[in-house]
Amino acid sequence: MGRHSENQTQLLKLSASQVPADSQQRAKQFVLNLQDEICTALEELDGKARFHEDCWQRAEGGQGRTRVIRDGRVFEQGGVNFSEVWGDSLPPAILAQRPEAAGHSFFVTGTSMVLHPRNPYVPTVHLNYRYFEAGPIWWFGGGADLTPYYPFAEDAIHFHQTLKGACDRSHPEYYPTFKRWCDEYFYLPHRQEQRGIGGIFFDYQDASSKLYVGCQPDSQAALYSQQVGTVSRSWEDIFAFVQSCGHAFLPAYLPIVQRRQEIEYSDRERQFQLYRRGRYVEFNLVYDRGTVFGLQTNGRAESILMSLPPLTRWEYGYQTQPGSPEAQLTEFFLQPQDWANGCLTQK
Amino acid sequence: MGRHSENQTQLLKLSASQVPADSQQRAKQFVLNLQDEICTALEELDGKARFHEDCWQRAEGGQGRTRVIRDGRVFEQGGVNFSEVWGDSLPPAILAQRPEAAGHSFFVTGTSMVLHPRNPYVPTVHLNYRYFEAGPIWWFGGGADLTPYYPFAEDAIHFHQTLKGACDRSHPEYYPTFKRWCDEYFYLPHRQEQRGIGGIFFDYQDASSKLYVGCQPDSQAALYSQQVGTVSRSWEDIFAFVQSCGHAFLPAYLPIVQRRQEIEYSDRERQFQLYRRGRYVEFNLVYDRGTVFGLQTNGRAESILMSLPPLTRWEYGYQTQPGSPEAQLTEFFLQPQDWANGCLTQK
Repeated sequence: MGRHSENQTQLLKLSASQVPADSQQRAKQFVLNLQDEICTALEELDGKARFHEDCWQRAEGGQGRTRVIRDGRVFEQGGVNFSEVWGDSLPPAILAQRPEAAGHSFFVTGTSMVLHPRNPYVPTVHLNYRYFEAGPIWWFGGGADLTPYYPFAEDAIHFHQTLKGACDRSHPEYYPTFKRWCDEYFYLPHRQEQRGIGGIFFDYQDASSKLYVGCQPDSQAALYSQQVGTVSRSWEDIFAFVQSCGHAFLPAYLPIVQRRQEIEYSDRERQFQLYRRGRYVEFNLVYDRGTVFGLQTNGRAESILMSLPPLTRWEYGYQTQPGSPEAQLTEFFLQPQDWANGCLTQK
Repeated sequence: MGRHSENQTQLLKLSASQVPADSQQRAKQFVLNLQDEICTALEELDGKARFHEDCWQRAEGGQGRTRVIRDGRVFEQGGVNFSEVWGDSLPPAILAQRPEAAGHSFFVTGTSMVLHPRNPYVPTVHLNYRYFEAGPIWWFGGGADLTPYYPFAEDAIHFHQTLKGACDRSHPEYYPTFKRWCDEYFYLPHRQEQRGIGGIFFDYQDASSKLYVGCQPDSQAALYSQQVGTVSRSWEDIFAFVQSCGHAFLPAYLPIVQRRQEIEYSDRERQFQLYRRGRYVEFNLVYDRGTVFGLQTNGRAESILMSLPPLTRWEYGYQTQPGSPEAQLTEFFLQPQDWANGCLTQK
């Protein structure tokens, strides 16, 4: 009896660090359902445009379901993508982070979304959740972040507080770690600017109890989560966390659209929006891990680059007018802020 | 007497593979003069807009003279940049090609130019010539290439024949090698398309007699130039060649502008131009060596990204109409062609 219960405990411990037999199917079903849930709500919100769907196959293994909305009442262009991809070997950039995956085939499934609204007062938003398996290892990654063109503190606070709520249901250290990680990831070194007001971002989340695998080793997120110490969790725990974050997207974003969608704007705001969209392009093409992964694995270019905005402009030497809303955006909102606590700190 | 003349011969041989004492000054003066020559001619051609000049200093060592033209009669936006930069160490991507430069300080000077005309019938054009020194080694690099939006074979033929003439004055194998290299360099793997109709491109040209250093080892340019065998030349020879190419730019490009600048166009051509400009952005931010070098060496972002177009659009799943001029551009003109011989080969 004693021996039996000891075995049971060992089995439970073992299974806690292991992956269920139907892990790939459950992860895939979650991201497919999330794509559906988001597309349905966005169509209802837009009221004019519908998503156009393309299903595609990847010759080397895999398939996808790309959905694009354009010329809507709210959305000038946007896409919500689902894909599952498998192959013989992960690309070098990922193997450098996860050497245990070398020599193993891989499976990845995920959903990613970028929405470019027409009205400059409505922020651009991005979401991505993904699940990897490769030989002995597995992990979840993803997040959601907001890129406003005009500075509304209440929008930034609402977005962060909603995501924080979703994180806190799983572990109190998730939000503080993954908020910092998001600020560090969505950063343009050549502009010394954040891409937007952030949100949450994480990668390589598995049962190894380390939150910070894949951060820059000397980053704020890594230093913070090293202080936190170990965080005990299973595949089920992390999957529940990712689901919680995924389902938090609509309550985080829709109220912001509803508040801003009817505000009138002039050519000035439109031109600033087009100019700022250039930064989005610069980030995605120069730095974004998902874009680079997609291009390295011979992904479907149209689906990968669906994140790029419908219309963008670059202007040499552009400067905001001191004291203007545009200056407030770049000077305050595009520096990391403690939005969940409603605080603005001047740099 | 015999011994003296033997010494002289040895000295001459030695100096032929060496760099003159005033190499940096002469290279710098050439690119400064080329910038002046081009800007003067472009202002005269445009007739409306003038170049705005910004002089800047690089904290880590160096300076530049950025000139930008915009809202002109011909040019919607364009820039001609001069810079000279020095520092303790070349970035890793260059050291991988030139390991002899490791542990040495470097000097580089160059001029680079991108012009984005307003009329979709006038091609975008790019030019860059640069000179590097690092410890025991030096080299020249650069080239010029044309990116039309509408297919005019006579423009492509004129551009290539003019550059070929400039190359042939130095060596008959330069054009065939550097034309192939250009086709291989200005290629977007994720689109399986050329950026434009090419021109010439070369890098790492020094007295080592190898034309192909810095090509992909299995590329057409490398295989072709390996067959050519050794090409004996000195610093002076290569400098003369680069000058010849630089001065060929205006005769290669201006007649094309003059032929196309007054052609009327509608929204259809404008929309296609904006769409194709997206490919220019994709190439420059994902693949371009100069852009990556600039961002890696903490260069002036505004000057580096001056190459990006004023207005650009992305459209998911765009397809040209079969048989249209737009289809002819992508199907024929954006595949490598033997333009200097006036031949179009279907892929």
